[in-house]
Amino acid sequence: MLQYALLHLFGYAVSIDDLKHFRQVDSITPGHPESHDTPGIEVTTGPLGQGFSNAVGLAIAQAHTAAVFNKPGFDLIDNYTYCFFGDGCAMEGIASEAASTAGHLQLGNLIAIYDDNHISIDGDTKCAFTEDVLKRFEAYGWHTLHVKDGDHDLEGIEAAIAEAKKVKDKPTVIKLTTTIGFGSKLQGTGGVHGNPLKADDIKQVKEKFGFDPEKTFVVPQEVYDLYHKHAAEGAAAEQEWNKLFEKYGQEHKALHADLARRLTRDLPEGWQNKLPTYKPTDAAIASRKLSESVLEAIHETIPELISGSADLTGSNNTRWKNAVDFQPPSLGIGDYSGRYMRYGVREHAMAAMMNGMSAYGTIIPAGGTFLNFVSYAAGAVRLSSLSHQRVIYVATHDSIGLGEDGPTHQPIETLAHFRALPNMMVWRPADGNETSAAYYMALTSKSTPSILALTRQNLPQLDSSTIEKAIKGGYVVLEDPEANITLVSTGSEVAICLEAVKTLKDRHNIRARVASLPCVEVFDAQPKDYKLSVIPDGIVAMSVEVMSTLGWEKYSHEQFGLNRFGASGPYKKVYEKFEFTPEGIAKRAVATVDFYKDVKPLRSPLNRAFTQLI
Amino acid sequence: MLQYALLHLFGYAVSIDDLKHFRQVDSITPGHPESHDTPGIEVTTGPLGQGFSNAVGLAIAQAHTAAVFNKPGFDLIDNYTYCFFGDGCAMEGIASEAASTAGHLQLGNLIAIYDDNHISIDGDTKCAFTEDVLKRFEAYGWHTLHVKDGDHDLEGIEAAIAEAKKVKDKPTVIKLTTTIGFGSKLQGTGGVHGNPLKADDIKQVKEKFGFDPEKTFVVPQEVYDLYHKHAAEGAAAEQEWNKLFEKYGQEHKALHADLARRLTRDLPEGWQNKLPTYKPTDAAIASRKLSESVLEAIHETIPELISGSADLTGSNNTRWKNAVDFQPPSLGIGDYSGRYMRYGVREHAMAAMMNGMSAYGTIIPAGGTFLNFVSYAAGAVRLSSLSHQRVIYVATHDSIGLGEDGPTHQPIETLAHFRALPNMMVWRPADGNETSAAYYMALTSKSTPSILALTRQNLPQLDSSTIEKAIKGGYVVLEDPEANITLVSTGSEVAICLEAVKTLKDRHNIRARVASLPCVEVFDAQPKDYKLSVIPDGIVAMSVEVMSTLGWEKYSHEQFGLNRFGASGPYKKVYEKFEFTPEGIAKRAVATVDFYKDVKPLRSPLNRAFTQLI
Repeated sequence: MLQYALLHLFGYAVSIDDLKHFRQVDSITPGHPESHDTPGIEVTTGPLGQGFSNAVGLAIAQAHTAAVFNKPGFDLIDNYTYCFFGDGCAMEGIASEAASTAGHLQLGNLIAIYDDNHISIDGDTKCAFTEDVLKRFEAYGWHTLHVKDGDHDLEGIEAAIAEAKKVKDKPTVIKLTTTIGFGSKLQGTGGVHGNPLKADDIKQVKEKFGFDPEKTFVVPQEVYDLYHKHAAEGAAAEQEWNKLFEKYGQEHKALHADLARRLTRDLPEGWQNKLPTYKPTDAAIASRKLSESVLEAIHETIPELISGSADLTGSNNTRWKNAVDFQPPSLGIGDYSGRYMRYGVREHAMAAMMNGMSAYGTIIPAGGTFLNFVSYAAGAVRLSSLSHQRVIYVATHDSIGLGEDGPTHQPIETLAHFRALPNMMVWRPADGNETSAAYYMALTSKSTPSILALTRQNLPQLDSSTIEKAIKGGYVVLEDPEANITLVSTGSEVAICLEAVKTLKDRHNIRARVASLPCVEVFDAQPKDYKLSVIPDGIVAMSVEVMSTLGWEKYSHEQFGLNRFGASGPYKKVYEKFEFTPEGIAKRAVATVDFYKDVKPLRSPLNRAFTQLI
Repeated sequence: MLQYALLHLFGYAVSIDDLKHFRQVDSITPGHPESHDTPGIEVTTGPLGQGFSNAVGLAIAQAHTAAVFNKPGFDLIDNYTYCFFGDGCAMEGIASEAASTAGHLQLGNLIAIYDDNHISIDGDTKCAFTEDVLKRFEAYGWHTLHVKDGDHDLEGIEAAIAEAKKVKDKPTVIKLTTTIGFGSKLQGTGGVHGNPLKADDIKQVKEKFGFDPEKTFVVPQEVYDLYHKHAAEGAAAEQEWNKLFEKYGQEHKALHADLARRLTRDLPEGWQNKLPTYKPTDAAIASRKLSESVLEAIHETIPELISGSADLTGSNNTRWKNAVDFQPPSLGIGDYSGRYMRYGVREHAMAAMMNGMSAYGTIIPAGGTFLNFVSYAAGAVRLSSLSHQRVIYVATHDSIGLGEDGPTHQPIETLAHFRALPNMMVWRPADGNETSAAYYMALTSKSTPSILALTRQNLPQLDSSTIEKAIKGGYVVLEDPEANITLVSTGSEVAICLEAVKTLKDRHNIRARVASLPCVEVFDAQPKDYKLSVIPDGIVAMSVEVMSTLGWEKYSHEQFGLNRFGASGPYKKVYEKFEFTPEGIAKRAVATVDFYKDVKPLRSPLNRAFTQLI
């Protein structure tokens, strides 16, 4: 509510009426601020630790954008990033990860204010949180300050911020010791965290601070005047910046055009011509390597693409050959114009920092980890979706096909999880053209994040795949007008299904067609006629994907999957153990054809009685 | 491999042959150690930060069990918990959360050894991790020590451990500066992290350390003798402990019986008679409150039940009235015999610590947070399942029914995620009897964790629910032999479905029956005949659950759910917005009945062509 009230005072499109509709259906003032809904909200926060980590991402984006575009006489990109956080955020591991990263990266323009009020939902923080927070931030390499009387010492706060700005090579945390609900009868207790104050308490608070206790939702004109004056100063600064940017355009034409384009979120024209394409005769390649080839091919054309990994660079294949690390120059291993992020083993903060980087508006972040460990980042991945950020998760080692690392690392539930998440594209490409298609959609979808599930093991190039077909999310890989069954599959299992077609024909006299569904979310959005051409009426369909079958009932009558944990071993042996072989698929296809032979009419599973709410 | 090799040397049932089958299918030596598979492996680790947090949980369990059972002359429970962790673990937020908790809790018997080798997968930790780890642990309240030459200084290591044992009121971290792959030609590089050494390198390493380079998988007899001597000392100590425990039984009969019982993981006889039951005339109550009533009713009878919350005690309703906090006595707000955990805002570490607490063998941990934030803990929740721990997640605020907090807090994808996770029971009870049933199953399933998805809003008591019916995971709430449709639902939507039955009858002349499926995993395990009596052939079924429909195709022909993010507002308004009303359900039921009227035979969705691998 403080954010909404301030936005109102500063003249953003948040009216008194909007404030009155706080936490009401279809208002622009939901219970926690959402960047997509409310003018002036920069990132979607509420889930603890996310906002802090978003701030680190915004500061990374600022440092990078400044390093790329600032020139002598043109300090175009010089903003500070401010963030308020409380004890709850300070306890969350994601914020620890982000703070450690910010200290390492020496993000001098980041100023975080720690509202040290000793209270969390469970009451006095003494019950769970007795560490020395400033000492911890010092250990991370932050500049630390303490304002002891945050309730009254406004000069102290201003002085601390001024001091923070002087330190250029460290982020600053200002510990502000405060009283929660200052002025209320319940001040200093958890009772003022989420509940409205009682009527008599509101009255005495208003009196205490010189307001008329009988009036509600009233802002004195002098308060509006004060805030509007500041807002006008901001607007004037924006005008000045616009002039500076115009002048910049005369001296640095290409850079000017690049920055102006980035702010529209459009990609450079013709970039898609750089996407690699493959012929059936090309070698079998792991899709993590195919992803690397895409990055290699497009990184020069798309300068806003910033790749990185949570300490799995060599496994995720996220780094193009001549990449420079994004690093503080003093370390001697990169600089702030570098486009490769070393996130460390910090998956959750990586995701939340990428949300912040994307929100800044000049960057498209892509970050790698094993698919199984995208789950470590689930809290932030959810917010990529909810806040419409174009963030790309490069999720390699996507199944039991990773082999030896075993069940602790083999995803079973992961794709079902993220397919159930609204506004998320989950891609599981089957070959090179499908991998290029996944990147095409991930990069051109301005307000939808993507997870690219990629293999460790090699995949043959399919006979009939093209980028154009695959960007529909699903298409027919092998047609047969007389087919008895459609095999619906993704990723590494598509090629095994194609083998199974031969087994079915040769040994069982059953004819099969094969559909590849690299992205069910994109497929769902196609016209119904098209979808029914891929998974038609009258032919039974069986899905084949080497993980949880949950959700595949939507695209098939029967499902072959893995509803148990995997096994450690060489990947082909693991596939054999679970019968993900042409024979294993054929056996189940035979049972499926037999089971459905008497059903009339046999409708495609895509034919539904009513439309879902979306 | 080091763990497996040591287990072999100490005489555990891990043979040289098992070592030869490292990372092979169906071996007991998978790529990362799993407690369920391998004798002597105490917790399932590999995913970074989990083992460290498990260790904190084991140390919590030790402190609690000691406080409950130790008596003068009977130091029954006095073990130290040792843990090795590297830079990767140190970077993970989960380990930060657990370390902060351990410092707060003053766990003196916890000794963590930090393998400070400067190398992670991406190479020199300088690229991402330049913080001062010991200073950070000091900030958490740990005792810190440093052995500077961990490659050679064995006496220094021994002395550090001895010093660690002297400090009784703080956990100790020993920073051991080492060289990764010490002795190899690749020592000090990431090249020795996961890859086998080359033949010539193996040869020179063996020579360097005095082994015959021509021999493989050979242990000199004097090495066996040394380890077996230590193992015999351990066995003798166990004998002594057994004698002490027998003597304890004479002096402390009830405590002896309690501890002996706990170690079998059986519950006290007759405990289930304490479970609350409800009549249809009882008041409507939120299931989070029903859960509180269960805890209130059973906590005296099941002393091993340790409840807690990640800073949402008042919202999760996880604390019985006279509960004592598990706290270091010096804080004056509890003691180590206390059975209520204040986990702080640390969901991921809470889950991993509960895994450790459960693995200790004397505790059943139950921990609360909002269902949406169980996702923060996904990495550890997965390991609850994989390692067969009886851990209970009390997950309140289970849907858009939480209302005002809005989309950032309203689960959509969460149940689909955890239903896709093998060996996890996801319960979403519809009333009081179903809530008691959920606890019955959660507590009696010795090797399966549970998530209890509970409402914020009140739920009426159903006419026909009983614990006996609900423990089957699914049952008929309202039968009608002439029904045109089965409504399949869970939790807060079951009562709305019952209202919809009246709407369908009165306005549409359609007869409906209702099935409640509080736990699909348990329902799946019932005999097929029973399942088909709940969702029969010949009647179309429609699922109703106010979140992602993903997976409901398995139990219904059509699905009514919410495949988008929710909305902030009073919960009834939010339900109305998305048409989760008797009318909204009836409308879709009519369309469903109409759409399927021509299908022959109309099979139950539970009738399948083949059986899944499990």
